Amino acid sequence: MLAEIITIGDEILIGQIVDTNSAWMAKQLNLAGIKVKQITSVSDDEAHILEALKLAEERAEIILITGGLGPTKDDITKLTLAKYFNMGFRRDEETLEQVKSIFKRFNRPMIESNMKQADVPDGCIVIQNKNGTAPCMWFNHGSKVIVSMPGVPYEMMYLMDEEILPRLKAAFVLPNIVHKTILTANIGESFLAQQIEDIEDTLPAYIKLAYLPRLGQVRLRLSGSGEDESALRAEIESYARLIVDRVKTYVVIEDDIALEKVILDVMMAQGLTLSTAESCTGGYIAHLITTHPGCSAVFAGGAVAYSYELKESILGVQQETLATYGAVSEETVKEMASGAVGHFNTDYAVAVSGIAGPDGGTPDKPVGTVWIAVASKDRVEAKVFNFGNKRIQNIERSAIAALTMIINRLKEDDRFSG
Amino acid sequence: MLAEIITIGDEILIGQIVDTNSAWMAKQLNLAGIKVKQITSVSDDEAHILEALKLAEERAEIILITGGLGPTKDDITKLTLAKYFNMGFRRDEETLEQVKSIFKRFNRPMIESNMKQADVPDGCIVIQNKNGTAPCMWFNHGSKVIVSMPGVPYEMMYLMDEEILPRLKAAFVLPNIVHKTILTANIGESFLAQQIEDIEDTLPAYIKLAYLPRLGQVRLRLSGSGEDESALRAEIESYARLIVDRVKTYVVIEDDIALEKVILDVMMAQGLTLSTAESCTGGYIAHLITTHPGCSAVFAGGAVAYSYELKESILGVQQETLATYGAVSEETVKEMASGAVGHFNTDYAVAVSGIAGPDGGTPDKPVGTVWIAVASKDRVEAKVFNFGNKRIQNIERSAIAALTMIINRLKEDDRFSG
Repeated sequence: MLAEIITIGDEILIGQIVDTNSAWMAKQLNLAGIKVKQITSVSDDEAHILEALKLAEERAEIILITGGLGPTKDDITKLTLAKYFNMGFRRDEETLEQVKSIFKRFNRPMIESNMKQADVPDGCIVIQNKNGTAPCMWFNHGSKVIVSMPGVPYEMMYLMDEEILPRLKAAFVLPNIVHKTILTANIGESFLAQQIEDIEDTLPAYIKLAYLPRLGQVRLRLSGSGEDESALRAEIESYARLIVDRVKTYVVIEDDIALEKVILDVMMAQGLTLSTAESCTGGYIAHLITTHPGCSAVFAGGAVAYSYELKESILGVQQETLATYGAVSEETVKEMASGAVGHFNTDYAVAVSGIAGPDGGTPDKPVGTVWIAVASKDRVEAKVFNFGNKRIQNIERSAIAALTMIINRLKEDDRFSG
Repeated sequence: MLAEIITIGDEILIGQIVDTNSAWMAKQLNLAGIKVKQITSVSDDEAHILEALKLAEERAEIILITGGLGPTKDDITKLTLAKYFNMGFRRDEETLEQVKSIFKRFNRPMIESNMKQADVPDGCIVIQNKNGTAPCMWFNHGSKVIVSMPGVPYEMMYLMDEEILPRLKAAFVLPNIVHKTILTANIGESFLAQQIEDIEDTLPAYIKLAYLPRLGQVRLRLSGSGEDESALRAEIESYARLIVDRVKTYVVIEDDIALEKVILDVMMAQGLTLSTAESCTGGYIAHLITTHPGCSAVFAGGAVAYSYELKESILGVQQETLATYGAVSEETVKEMASGAVGHFNTDYAVAVSGIAGPDGGTPDKPVGTVWIAVASKDRVEAKVFNFGNKRIQNIERSAIAALTMIINRLKEDDRFSG
């Protein structure tokens, strides 16, 4: 079963926003056994939308459209869909009530363009959008399904989870899809591929292996489709065993979850606590950790110690250490990590101090030099990295390296068992 | 002049990664006077890539391709391009040297699949990729230009900035494009549109107004194209004046920059310092601030005080306050903000404490309840918000609200003048 995603709106084409919707939708569709053939972003232009719809219908059975349903003038998606399907308009009373209730809840004045949000092509099935004013519209077109959703991410996500995916599963016979992800770190993509080439060559046609590299990690993803789900799962698992045995030292976890979630799960199970002491990562590690619900059972908090003063006052780094070795040094980062363990009273702490750039580099310590330490109450260890001269990349790679160091330390300390 | 962007690779279509490249490229192209007609993501499939290339060439003059150039087996972009242009292959010596030097620098073993990265279609112009092993390939095809770049963001960005954009500007006659952005907050898109409808109606055909809403903010973007750049700029500026005068109270700044950058610029100019005290935002505000180079002149750092204990120990929140009013309360958040000003010795501090969810809500304080305070040495003020029941959205909207409150406070304190 093939689907296509079409996003409508100039904001993606002028680079004002990043299209995060399509990746999320693609992931959910894949998990449901629906392959995404193409993702297309087109402008708020009638002829262009009509062409994109026609081409998508030639390639796929399911077309999911997001965006172009807001109240301002440049939104012509709804008009274009009515034209494409040769339909007139009707005002949908349930949608109108929803629009009114939202304006009432936020105590905002309601104007004519808001009322028009309740107008829909008369041959579509309206699916109520509980989180916003733009309705979701489902069109049955011969054997094909075309759905138009609002572009606001959480409105789209709720509609997909609660309405669209269940309805698609009911409308189409979908194959069983089984995925298995192996997360590796500290190994390059091509070297990894060479290590497991012979295993990959023995995979049957219905099982694929994908290499998904990102920031010092490579995810290996085995995906299979078939009729007998449990047999397929067993077969994929046996290939996963072969791969894991071959590259064991690089395997972080056999699951498709974020590094910080691995840490939270392991530490939660062991009743351990964590804190952070961040300089150049500026709170990014704490942010990654705190995106996960329930993190407060493990994560006590931390310091974003950007200035020398805060490194001393919150973390207890010695003034002498900073003066002698500088903020970006093994000595300082170790005192930061140990200071966090002590001051924040946690079992483990991670500390990062580096030169994110673009300024602040020296011949000795060029931009991209990053010291990372992991401490427990009885032991602190540090490593130095160089991540090059791009600020954002330095922050991201430092965070990934720090999380990987915590995982390695938890493994060393035998915290993964049990 | 029209361009299209094609991304190649299953990782976008299975939702493994978000396509951030295309938005960045689209923004740069627009600034250079090149309009992006369509962005298309296709799989690692020869027939599909060939079709996408053909269709793109029918619509646009410039086709920029990213992705599908890595060393592992599923990368067939280069082979497909050679087929599309009916070319053979040659090994590019300069690229081979670059590949070798990168493997040498990272001290990694080099294997045959890495050598193959230096093979290119024999009719293309090779542009050296200084940051990676995959070469950038430029094809002149009649009056059209097709460029293939690696998908690694910083490799692509460097190539675009240093090579592709300058070469495109030399190869094509591009119009002058002038943009002007007005950032508003605390006003809905449709209400804003109604307020300035009559101004919008008077815009000439060559000046467009776009509404770009995101997380409690709406950016108004005037874009014009024409031959006389300075006349166009003056005309756009005069329309901007009309709009700003009409909705003055909602205007944050007349520029297309992030809220935290507004804060950094104003505080830097005034020699002021800032710290943060974050609970539910978990370091996200500090992260946003520290993505900007030079932020250390303003930002001292802060606390991610997730636990009660850290709120007391780092920020000096009274145990009694926490016990009486709870962590998510006006009293606590004010003590957090004042505590940050005092303990971190900064001119201003912002504090956030809320229930990000999905758990932790009560009838009195449902999930999404967020208190935010801004303090200076002599004054602290707090506001309560409710951002609904989505964790990530709560974190993001809390951060945006906190940054907006800092800006409003800096305006009240007359820090924007001069």
